[in-house]
Amino acid sequence: MSRVDVARRTGLSAAAVTKAARPFIEAGYLEELASEGRTAPGAGRPANPLAIRPDREYFVGVKITGDDLIGVVTDLRADVRAGAHHALASHDVGHVVQALADLVGELLTGTLRERAYCLGIAVSGDVDRASGVVRYSPFLGWRDVPLAELLEEATGLTVTLENDVKALAVAEQWFGEGVGASSFALVTVGTGIGSALVVNGGLVRGAHGVAGEIGHVPVADGGPSCHCGGQGCVEAIASTEAILTRARQVTGEPGLSMDDAVTRARGGDEPLREVFAGAGHAIGLGLAALVNLFGPERVVVSGEGVATYDLFEDQIRRTFAVQAFGSAARCGLVIRPLPFEEWARGAAAVAVQSLFASDSV
Amino acid sequence: MSRVDVARRTGLSAAAVTKAARPFIEAGYLEELASEGRTAPGAGRPANPLAIRPDREYFVGVKITGDDLIGVVTDLRADVRAGAHHALASHDVGHVVQALADLVGELLTGTLRERAYCLGIAVSGDVDRASGVVRYSPFLGWRDVPLAELLEEATGLTVTLENDVKALAVAEQWFGEGVGASSFALVTVGTGIGSALVVNGGLVRGAHGVAGEIGHVPVADGGPSCHCGGQGCVEAIASTEAILTRARQVTGEPGLSMDDAVTRARGGDEPLREVFAGAGHAIGLGLAALVNLFGPERVVVSGEGVATYDLFEDQIRRTFAVQAFGSAARCGLVIRPLPFEEWARGAAAVAVQSLFASDSV
Ligand SMILES: [Zn+2]
Ligand SMILES: [Zn+2]
Repeated sequence: MSRVDVARRTGLSAAAVTKAARPFIEAGYLEELASEGRTAPGAGRPANPLAIRPDREYFVGVKITGDDLIGVVTDLRADVRAGAHHALASHDVGHVVQALADLVGELLTGTLRERAYCLGIAVSGDVDRASGVVRYSPFLGWRDVPLAELLEEATGLTVTLENDVKALAVAEQWFGEGVGASSFALVTVGTGIGSALVVNGGLVRGAHGVAGEIGHVPVADGGPSCHCGGQGCVEAIASTEAILTRARQVTGEPGLSMDDAVTRARGGDEPLREVFAGAGHAIGLGLAALVNLFGPERVVVSGEGVATYDLFEDQIRRTFAVQAFGSAARCGLVIRPLPFEEWARGAAAVAVQSLFASDSV
Repeated sequence: MSRVDVARRTGLSAAAVTKAARPFIEAGYLEELASEGRTAPGAGRPANPLAIRPDREYFVGVKITGDDLIGVVTDLRADVRAGAHHALASHDVGHVVQALADLVGELLTGTLRERAYCLGIAVSGDVDRASGVVRYSPFLGWRDVPLAELLEEATGLTVTLENDVKALAVAEQWFGEGVGASSFALVTVGTGIGSALVVNGGLVRGAHGVAGEIGHVPVADGGPSCHCGGQGCVEAIASTEAILTRARQVTGEPGLSMDDAVTRARGGDEPLREVFAGAGHAIGLGLAALVNLFGPERVVVSGEGVATYDLFEDQIRRTFAVQAFGSAARCGLVIRPLPFEEWARGAAAVAVQSLFASDSV
């Protein structure tokens, strides 16, 4: 991209762009390309395009789930260069830290090791990015674990910790569907249902530490009880567990597995199809609440629950179309599965972001 | 406030504050006070406190309802100096413009007239502030009326047009409950139910022109049909009309008036009390959706419907407490009536804002 284009996009003068770019060129993150159609470009002329040097530095990203660690190494553009995963034998903090250090060691070989300084970690729950502390993680059973500090000691890398859904939103905004959108939402569906919202160019963090809890938006007055203490929450109807519970009820088979429920619904079992459609309906209502309140440019729905999105998608879209208010219905709705590796890439994207931006999205 | 304090709050250097303040001092909007404890302060010293000169300029604000025009004149601090209102005989654009010009003439007498240059107009519906066009106003039956232009011709004042709920939010953020809050929501309850959200320091406008539509958040799956085409929206349960419809149903009195319903509910009529409580429950669910999604520091609930808030407030707070997720429940919830004059003051606040800020909140 030429400096003139950068200037136009950022609202800076070409001279200011040249000045701002200089330290990045000196540090090797940006390079000046010869301008097209000229053989002897003057050094530093605004017309010379600037390009990111993706191999200048590599970033490690790891997503921690209750069962395993999924890790990737990316370049500066968050393109994945290597990947690996590890099962977690226990949730003991010392064990997890050691397993993370082993995984990082396994991922970083050769030139990757020489140019990797930053590690991003994505974990579900209440994560304080600024202090690097996992305040509360239900899956791991952790409270107030200073994970960033422990990992810096164990790996020698600079560590950034982020909530996993927020990390995905960073990846989307910097490198994915959210590029160029001043507002968007990422909704993840699975064991839990959550979202990250970007509004006025910034991630919504919530004045009291809570935001994006689309799983606990009440959509069905008098509906099923939720573990949060509320009733009729989206998560109480559409989480993996809620779907399985309901599937067992309608079939009268208390031992029914999720895989079997999915197979039979795909095979045309009407009562089971309705269970999935009901979950899609609740998700569609939650999306309508979100979109009517915030009006984002687009919403991406993803997460492990979306692996079965053929059973949801129609109903999500139908309900959303009915309940979205006026032109809010023009919000682009992208529903797509999300491989686990994407979560790890989100963690790496947070590490890239930490290097260049002082705080959040 | 001293320049040192201004510098600390804005993150600017004291020298930058002095420089930024100079044109405002020259134009008479700010004045330098003698610093305390010193008799011969050096001119322009950072320690000299700066003060707004509220009487430097006056601002006219008018709220247009379907029935009347409510106007105020405020000073620079949005303190009301004069007020007046006019009934509207028709919604004909020419008639409304003439009535507005008459009202402005009535409001601006003596020194008020000499120092008033700006008029803010607040109107419900879809308003494009940038172009000064009322895109759609259901109450007035208007579509694409270039009201700002028409009023500038009729009054000679500089006109700023804003949606009425957004205007109130501006007043709250600049001069009311929202001062110092980086995020808050203003929810208005009455004929319609709407809200304005301030997130990351800016008003949420919606990428597709829709935001803050808390009235159309679906909270009761399978609930009453809404004029928006949805079902179970907050507005379909808790708007003034929805309450009256329900009150007539439960009493079997098709001619029951709202005043009578309120009087009898206050007198202890249980079925009618339940109708109001049901509306409060729906509002509480909508507030929980809003707060769980964006976690504002505080929420102000107001509007003409809140005149009867003794019949709602308990249930709003009870439902909110159950459905707010975790620490989101710490969000300050202020429920208070809103005199019509406050709406007009909101319009004046928008005019003040337009003078000093380039765009929105
Ligand atoms: Zn819940
Ligand atoms: Zn509606």
